[in-house]
Amino acid sequence: MRKQKKVQDSYVIMTELVLPNDTNTLHNLMGGRMMHWMDIVSAIAAQKHSNRIVVTASVDNVSFSESIKLGNVVTLEAKVTRAFNSSMEVHIVVYSEDIPSGKKVKSNQAFFTFVAVDQLGNPIDVPEAVPETEEEIKLYEGALRRRQLRLVLAGRMKPSEANELRSIFDIKEGAQGAE
Amino acid sequence: MRKQKKVQDSYVIMTELVLPNDTNTLHNLMGGRMMHWMDIVSAIAAQKHSNRIVVTASVDNVSFSESIKLGNVVTLEAKVTRAFNSSMEVHIVVYSEDIPSGKKVKSNQAFFTFVAVDQLGNPIDVPEAVPETEEEIKLYEGALRRRQLRLVLAGRMKPSEANELRSIFDIKEGAQGAE
Amino acid sequence: MRKQKKVQDSYVIMTELVLPNDTNTLHNLMGGRMMHWMDIVSAIAAQKHSNRIVVTASVDNVSFSESIKLGNVVTLEAKVTRAFNSSMEVHIVVYSEDIPSGKKVKSNQAFFTFVAVDQLGNPIDVPEAVPETEEEIKLYEGALRRRQLRLVLAGRMKPSEANELRSIFDIKEGAQGAE
Amino acid sequence: MRKQKKVQDSYVIMTELVLPNDTNTLHNLMGGRMMHWMDIVSAIAAQKHSNRIVVTASVDNVSFSESIKLGNVVTLEAKVTRAFNSSMEVHIVVYSEDIPSGKKVKSNQAFFTFVAVDQLGNPIDVPEAVPETEEEIKLYEGALRRRQLRLVLAGRMKPSEANELRSIFDIKEGAQGAE
Amino acid sequence: MRKQKKVQDSYVIMTELVLPNDTNTLHNLMGGRMMHWMDIVSAIAAQKHSNRIVVTASVDNVSFSESIKLGNVVTLEAKVTRAFNSSMEVHIVVYSEDIPSGKKVKSNQAFFTFVAVDQLGNPIDVPEAVPETEEEIKLYEGALRRRQLRLVLAGRMKPSEANELRSIFDIKEGAQGAE
Amino acid sequence: MRKQKKVQDSYVIMTELVLPNDTNTLHNLMGGRMMHWMDIVSAIAAQKHSNRIVVTASVDNVSFSESIKLGNVVTLEAKVTRAFNSSMEVHIVVYSEDIPSGKKVKSNQAFFTFVAVDQLGNPIDVPEAVPETEEEIKLYEGALRRRQLRLVLAGRMKPSEANELRSIFDIKEGAQGAE
Repeated sequence: MRKQKKVQDSYVIMTELVLPNDTNTLHNLMGGRMMHWMDIVSAIAAQKHSNRIVVTASVDNVSFSESIKLGNVVTLEAKVTRAFNSSMEVHIVVYSEDIPSGKKVKSNQAFFTFVAVDQLGNPIDVPEAVPETEEEIKLYEGALRRRQLRLVLAGRMKPSEANELRSIFDIKEGAQGAE
Repeated sequence: MRKQKKVQDSYVIMTELVLPNDTNTLHNLMGGRMMHWMDIVSAIAAQKHSNRIVVTASVDNVSFSESIKLGNVVTLEAKVTRAFNSSMEVHIVVYSEDIPSGKKVKSNQAFFTFVAVDQLGNPIDVPEAVPETEEEIKLYEGALRRRQLRLVLAGRMKPSEANELRSIFDIKEGAQGAE
Repeated sequence: MRKQKKVQDSYVIMTELVLPNDTNTLHNLMGGRMMHWMDIVSAIAAQKHSNRIVVTASVDNVSFSESIKLGNVVTLEAKVTRAFNSSMEVHIVVYSEDIPSGKKVKSNQAFFTFVAVDQLGNPIDVPEAVPETEEEIKLYEGALRRRQLRLVLAGRMKPSEANELRSIFDIKEGAQGAE
Repeated sequence: MRKQKKVQDSYVIMTELVLPNDTNTLHNLMGGRMMHWMDIVSAIAAQKHSNRIVVTASVDNVSFSESIKLGNVVTLEAKVTRAFNSSMEVHIVVYSEDIPSGKKVKSNQAFFTFVAVDQLGNPIDVPEAVPETEEEIKLYEGALRRRQLRLVLAGRMKPSEANELRSIFDIKEGAQGAE
Repeated sequence: MRKQKKVQDSYVIMTELVLPNDTNTLHNLMGGRMMHWMDIVSAIAAQKHSNRIVVTASVDNVSFSESIKLGNVVTLEAKVTRAFNSSMEVHIVVYSEDIPSGKKVKSNQAFFTFVAVDQLGNPIDVPEAVPETEEEIKLYEGALRRRQLRLVLAGRMKPSEANELRSIFDIKEGAQGAE
Repeated sequence: MRKQKKVQDSYVIMTELVLPNDTNTLHNLMGGRMMHWMDIVSAIAAQKHSNRIVVTASVDNVSFSESIKLGNVVTLEAKVTRAFNSSMEVHIVVYSEDIPSGKKVKSNQAFFTFVAVDQLGNPIDVPEAVPETEEEIKLYEGALRRRQLRLVLAGRMKPSEANELRSIFDIKEGAQGAE
């Protein structure tokens, strides 16, 4: 039987200070630096879950709504949501904090997927991820839907086979017929 | 009338050499460094189109299928596909090349969206992007669909309003009614 | 009356991946990189306590006993132990983890002291730090002794005035007379 | 008999320009960057003395009294003060210079200790360090006292055995009895 | 017979954004960072021509007349001009662009020379470089003259043997006799 | 009368450790990193001579004959050779040292030229540089010749006017006529 590990065991917190070279000419954090940090924190979460070297397989749609300023403190929290054979989906939540003003906001969230590999770089199975809290269960359940979206977007699954995905688009079989 | 600019005028090529600090313990390029480069090259394309400072608004789903090794040469090509008021979608194609072996592959593609801003960071209108080649026209036409997917995923558009999106999921209105 | 803040409110966790440029020719993390990380994590803790810009005032003796390897994950945890007018002592504990082997060790601890400053760089008062747990109380109580040692080592306090310090050197007044 | 080498043969000068990423939001050099430079310059001094790879063993109390600005030139001078079996104490003096104003100050001093290791990372004996100038002799003599303080602070020596250390605290045996 | 490759096949474009750490206290790009970029782009051109690892052999006189500002976009274009046994001369042209103002200037040009090496670092022959356009032919023809100047400046050729070089200095044999 | 300063007062020593990101796939220091270090050390020498902000004006031909390995210690020594109105020529000598093997070699030398500027970036006069030692005098005297070569190569002086330059090419007026 496949080994099991708690979602909580993969939890990682990373804190970064926004330095001059991370910013554009408006002194705002550049999106690419944020993605770089997201990749590192989520790779560590996937490593903790699998006890393996991991490689980034995909990044889901990320949106940037808040501008983060030079000197702000950025906190990234990551944990595995669900494991599929050799791959793991990781959820990342990002907070940014302007400490002198005491203003702290949730600035982004993202889903990164990693594949565990052996020393030769070949995929290798990972333990199941067992969610416990309500939020972990919700993320676990949504993982299948997000996976289908990734496969459809990558042209590796026919939309007609992506049953889980319909829920994103609110497509009720009967209701649609009625439109 | 809104100013027009050719898609081709925003074209940017960036070349990077994969250095030790860009790699994991298998000596493969980390996904986050790639995203960082993608953000810079596409920000420059959006700057060239708008002649403005730009900020990253969103990154579409990116998948990483090829491993890129230490010492490889990575070439990123970016151009604006379409402009919407103050925002611009940029398409990025990435090639990686192992020069001693002469092996060159297309390793990734991605869509990043940017917003043009003034000196105070407020959004400001940009010229229309005029596609010319067949490929540019195809990317231009797909931009609307990808935009709807972004809005739906960000919870800012109801799936039922995302008409363009249906084509991704191959949802023919009549056919659905027949299900 | 002086404002009070819980020690716990200054708590910061930082996670770093040991990259090639952080290591010497034996592929071990260099001490200077570790000190650099310690400074950032503890500066953030001091900022959180004071809601001010802070500058490093001193670093206590740090010893490095464990070698930390390329690819290891380093976790730094920092919190303010005690505040004195405009200065704050911060305690940092460092863990290093070789994830594939599942080996995690406490590798270092350190005390950094910061001064809160205003926009002109002048020292400014900070809230009192209120310890709650047993460990926080112990660190709070030891802070006075460590402060005296800093002042003596910096030539700013006469050893004969450093009453608290005697406890480090186990100098019992009566007992000594008996030697 | 153990090989001997002059203190002067380990002398190293390092010069650094304070760049934006080295500074905080007040445009002052961050303490952690300074410690990073101190570690590199003193590791080179210890390498020159031992002709070996060296690893940082400990850093003595360092205090930061002068603020160093963006664009300043920082000069670090390091030399071995004394060798003990496989370990070496290195003294570092740091000057900072604001060249346009012609202002140059001694900003810090520090003592770092290194252990020489072989290719497997095992400690290996180093030559004796022979002081020549008055200042070198003074540093050589103080090294024993500082070493005892390190051992006491690390819990590896009982304060009662730290005879040399008493001089720091001005503890005269008879006088103490008289208290 | 020696293999031939078109000059055009070695063509590389690199684009860089001027970040804070690349600039001096006047917020202008430092010359050394520019040289660093020139070295990378031209090394890639030489690698593409030779399909080998290459090492920098020399850099010709470079002058810096235009100041390039923080936030500017720098474009470097490189191609091999001519190959000699194991060495290749590469021509680099640098443009800098202030995108908001739409100002783009040719800021520098340079010639770097590389040697192709095998895995042990020994020089190894490279294909001939075949120029096609008028500009490529002009650069090809000038390469011999520049090579002689390098050899004379390095003390490895007597000026009296540097026949090609005379043309730089406009030295007509008969005319000189007449002086 | 123009202010005078000793050449020796501009003397700067910089020491660098070759880290992984400074090297190519053969683990040799890349030429561009070396040029970057040369620019910083010589800019500091020019700053010390002029007590001004300086900008790089040109770099003379540099050749790279020795390969420098990962972990080596690189020492760069720079001093102003001669000043011309607002510009200063700086001579840089580079040594590389493989400390475990005790091998130290002179690996390069170079001449960089800087212009002193005021806060608006306009050129401003600098003190005369007064050479004292035999080597300083030799470098001082050669500076005029190198300056003419720079001007001729930059197309800003006719070769026929470059009287000093003839000595490089060993062109004796009478002798040439006799060829």
